[in-house]
Amino acid sequence: DKAETKGGLKITSDDGNFSAALGGRIHFDTYLFDEDIEDPISTTEFRRARIILSGEAYNWKYKLEQDFAAGSTLSGFRDVYIATGLAGGTLTIGQFKPYRSMEELTSANEITMMERPFTSATGIYRGRQFQQGVGWHTHVNCYTFGIMAINLRDAGTPRNEGLGAASRFTWTPVNDDVSTLHFGISLSHEDANRNTEPLEAEVIYAGRRGPRQLIALTPGGDNFFFGEFGDDEFFIDDGGGTVNSAGLELAGTYGPLYGQAEYVYADYDGDYFLSELTFVDFFGDPAPFACDPVIGCFIDDQRVDAWYVMGSWIITGEHKPYNAGKAVFKSPKPQGKYGAWELTARYDTIRNRDIHDLKAKSLIFGLNYYVNPRVRFMLNVTFGDDDFTGDKTNQLAIRAQMYW
Amino acid sequence: DKAETKGGLKITSDDGNFSAALGGRIHFDTYLFDEDIEDPISTTEFRRARIILSGEAYNWKYKLEQDFAAGSTLSGFRDVYIATGLAGGTLTIGQFKPYRSMEELTSANEITMMERPFTSATGIYRGRQFQQGVGWHTHVNCYTFGIMAINLRDAGTPRNEGLGAASRFTWTPVNDDVSTLHFGISLSHEDANRNTEPLEAEVIYAGRRGPRQLIALTPGGDNFFFGEFGDDEFFIDDGGGTVNSAGLELAGTYGPLYGQAEYVYADYDGDYFLSELTFVDFFGDPAPFACDPVIGCFIDDQRVDAWYVMGSWIITGEHKPYNAGKAVFKSPKPQGKYGAWELTARYDTIRNRDIHDLKAKSLIFGLNYYVNPRVRFMLNVTFGDDDFTGDKTNQLAIRAQMYW
Amino acid sequence: DKAETKGGLKITSDDGNFSAALGGRIHFDTYLFDEDIEDPISTTEFRRARIILSGEAYNWKYKLEQDFAAGSTLSGFRDVYIATGLAGGTLTIGQFKPYRSMEELTSANEITMMERPFTSATGIYRGRQFQQGVGWHTHVNCYTFGIMAINLRDAGTPRNEGLGAASRFTWTPVNDDVSTLHFGISLSHEDANRNTEPLEAEVIYAGRRGPRQLIALTPGGDNFFFGEFGDDEFFIDDGGGTVNSAGLELAGTYGPLYGQAEYVYADYDGDYFLSELTFVDFFGDPAPFACDPVIGCFIDDQRVDAWYVMGSWIITGEHKPYNAGKAVFKSPKPQGKYGAWELTARYDTIRNRDIHDLKAKSLIFGLNYYVNPRVRFMLNVTFGDDDFTGDKTNQLAIRAQMYW
Repeated sequence: DKAETKGGLKITSDDGNFSAALGGRIHFDTYLFDEDIEDPISTTEFRRARIILSGEAYNWKYKLEQDFAAGSTLSGFRDVYIATGLAGGTLTIGQFKPYRSMEELTSANEITMMERPFTSATGIYRGRQFQQGVGWHTHVNCYTFGIMAINLRDAGTPRNEGLGAASRFTWTPVNDDVSTLHFGISLSHEDANRNTEPLEAEVIYAGRRGPRQLIALTPGGDNFFFGEFGDDEFFIDDGGGTVNSAGLELAGTYGPLYGQAEYVYADYDGDYFLSELTFVDFFGDPAPFACDPVIGCFIDDQRVDAWYVMGSWIITGEHKPYNAGKAVFKSPKPQGKYGAWELTARYDTIRNRDIHDLKAKSLIFGLNYYVNPRVRFMLNVTFGDDDFTGDKTNQLAIRAQMYW
Repeated sequence: DKAETKGGLKITSDDGNFSAALGGRIHFDTYLFDEDIEDPISTTEFRRARIILSGEAYNWKYKLEQDFAAGSTLSGFRDVYIATGLAGGTLTIGQFKPYRSMEELTSANEITMMERPFTSATGIYRGRQFQQGVGWHTHVNCYTFGIMAINLRDAGTPRNEGLGAASRFTWTPVNDDVSTLHFGISLSHEDANRNTEPLEAEVIYAGRRGPRQLIALTPGGDNFFFGEFGDDEFFIDDGGGTVNSAGLELAGTYGPLYGQAEYVYADYDGDYFLSELTFVDFFGDPAPFACDPVIGCFIDDQRVDAWYVMGSWIITGEHKPYNAGKAVFKSPKPQGKYGAWELTARYDTIRNRDIHDLKAKSLIFGLNYYVNPRVRFMLNVTFGDDDFTGDKTNQLAIRAQMYW
Repeated sequence: DKAETKGGLKITSDDGNFSAALGGRIHFDTYLFDEDIEDPISTTEFRRARIILSGEAYNWKYKLEQDFAAGSTLSGFRDVYIATGLAGGTLTIGQFKPYRSMEELTSANEITMMERPFTSATGIYRGRQFQQGVGWHTHVNCYTFGIMAINLRDAGTPRNEGLGAASRFTWTPVNDDVSTLHFGISLSHEDANRNTEPLEAEVIYAGRRGPRQLIALTPGGDNFFFGEFGDDEFFIDDGGGTVNSAGLELAGTYGPLYGQAEYVYADYDGDYFLSELTFVDFFGDPAPFACDPVIGCFIDDQRVDAWYVMGSWIITGEHKPYNAGKAVFKSPKPQGKYGAWELTARYDTIRNRDIHDLKAKSLIFGLNYYVNPRVRFMLNVTFGDDDFTGDKTNQLAIRAQMYW
């Protein structure tokens, strides 16, 4: 059989029916904070250190991806699935990303900024990047469609009876060597149930390892509640709760220019009671509405808006290619001896329409240096702005990354 | 050198003296419970997600197998050993399965039901599936013999001075393309000592993640005792304790039919004192014998019987082959375009002869669908029955598995 | 492309510009203690069980090494870096060993005794074997030079703002097939800061998993302090602190003979206050100087000396080769059918010059059996001696190791 390497190990059978590969990635970061009300610790850190096994046998594929930077092997599960062709598409069984949010589905090796935007699991779908279930995805001409039935957990979260579904449809009317135009829509439904962790929208508005702001919360399994009415600290409800969301995507390239925007609206349903102290604990500041001394602060449905606009200019003239199968953009391949250089910017915002001033923003400027097709350095300057607490922490972040 | 793949990576040197392989497996399960007294949480879960390195150099072999589904890398140790030929057999040093119980020694990729029976580390040898030590195993004609000297731990259990030994002898008078007849016997001795965890027989009688019933316990290191006589909760003894067991195996195939049965008798020695509350804590129900208000419930030697009968019929006509080297059965290789289909059943029972009614049973019906030599789907319906607590929880379980 | 194996997997592109390899190691130990005042638990244990991915693409190299024996994937990070050629040397970014202490930089597969000496992270640089940062290393003729800028952490320690630098220079005037003469010097500076763990010199003087003796401590981030003046237990300071050290190396071989010695002087700065109880907690015995009932025991600068002398004779006549690029010795390659046999000895000592009697010694005799170039068995007898507590625990230890 045929052995190959471009930095990883790959063997393909002579008839092409069998293959196996061992890959991986290292993302090594430095975070330097400019403190405000919050004062996070500056540090170096491995953002990702993954080993990836993938292969094919008898028309079934597998992928087993483990991130050693996650702390435990269970939290380290990333794509772990088996898949086969079905009805003109691909059937996937196991753990993978629900089909929602364009930038979420973009590989971490190829995202434009160091962290994903508020419309992804880095915000409105906080902590639900990978989920377990069964999905089907297809790509026909300029369309892609994917749908997934979900048990609301990944390998690192508690076993639970929560269920959900996510679906995404994209249309790419223009996609040639010079320009691409992409439209997308996604829908997601999540229904918490026994032992499901609360579903949250939460943002880290001043860069990785910086301060967090909870934006919305739907209660989960009743084992996550605590305290009694009248206590100093309580969080009480009947349990269960749903989150429904819809997302829109608009993106395109023209030569060395690239722009991408997403908007997600989510309804975090509620009906729960928090003591005033617990409210501060959860949201970081006192409730901006009246709370009762005994039954505390009552929260019901919360409508959340999140959107971002992101763009880049590749100074060295390379073009950002489009992955038509997944309907996401990829990194440019550097052409010259000194690599490719890209100027980037993003404006991110999220707000809870039903709790006054509960919103956060993030403005990021960056520079990406693509040394070669495997190595990239990134620099991001993030200006964070938490309207709820008033904190305006900033961050300078640098990444060295290689994959194989 | 020669590169090969059947889904994994393998390289063999041209002279055959060196080789290396990277394999793995994914077992992804869904458990749905039909509650009774107990009400376990239904969920999806990765039962196994393993990476396996193996190879040979200068007549020594190694195997390094890690299960990422185990939670920590120490609990994730499976087969981790080095081995070489010695005196007509194989000398193995490191962590591996003691030579006892036929179904225990069968690969998880090839077991007939989704979980192993009560005569294995899923019952009478609870938590002692992999142990550290030195073993020797040989296969001559229709006989196999294996023996292992054990430190009573795996990488995930505390360092301790417990010692043991296990041995297994098998005879296969018939083994041709149509039929196999297998007899086996195993003996095991375990001697708990400083820092050894208590040795337990415990069963999960209604399927994985279902309720548990402790059947017998031998105290271990004295650091595992707690409380004082007269306290509400105590567990007191001098420490140490031994478990001696003997197992019998009878199995065979005839064309598409297969049957396998094992019986294990174990003597869990005791002499320990539990408060009535601790008894309930450990065994799930009050002691069925008189306990003293001060010195509590006294338990001495406990004789445990466990046995099962398991059978299957491969509807599509394939034959279940026999691994003569390890003296266990393997999965059938599907012949037709629509794979192989197998109907399965097992009846499992275990009891403590010295504590009234301390027994549990499990009746399982199943269907296995072998899509191809690498991919299998399993369905098991388990009817659990805990005579001690009266619980009769049932479970429907589904597995999707691939290995490479 | 070209596939190769000597026990591991390796693929190299035909033009030699790309390569990838999968290797690993298993070190399986048995520890038997001869108790004195201390009475550690004898046990078997995996000392190392590592998987190692390495490769090269477009003139950049990577290494991703994970030790599953470390307990969590974060503590399991070993060499995890990307590297490229720069200015006649190698630039390394990520986690790796600071350039200090000859035996520290020797691979664990090739160290002469089972554990490293007191002049390494097994003593004077306790817990700082791998650190995160950027380094540059070069080898020209008979000289090597390396320097590293450090964030004082590895993946398993808390994120912190501690900074440091380490540098090593070596000269090897003689290096031929029969004899080698090596001189080396290293300098290290460590500056604890926000959230940095206390920097400690600590030795395990009676072999792995035996008793420990803290020799010196510099306070770190203020979150590691506890208690108030006058409490039973407190540890109080303003936080921060530095450690400066200098090391000397002298080593050589002549035919089958080998000798190696290192001396390290370190200044652990201090100015902290401990209650008498906390002193006993930290150092194992009461302070040998006067402590105040309210402000406790005051510790300021502590000067620490550590040195060892190690030698071996390879009975079967092989010569221990020298790795000129890293400036460390390697294991002999066995020539005969019965492998290579090596007699070894080491005397290790460390003391705190500023606290009376705070010193420890270790005398080790050993035998190494190199079965083949991949497999080694080791036997070490360690005579421990803790002058501070008076404990003289001894240990017999055996290792079976294979790498690929």
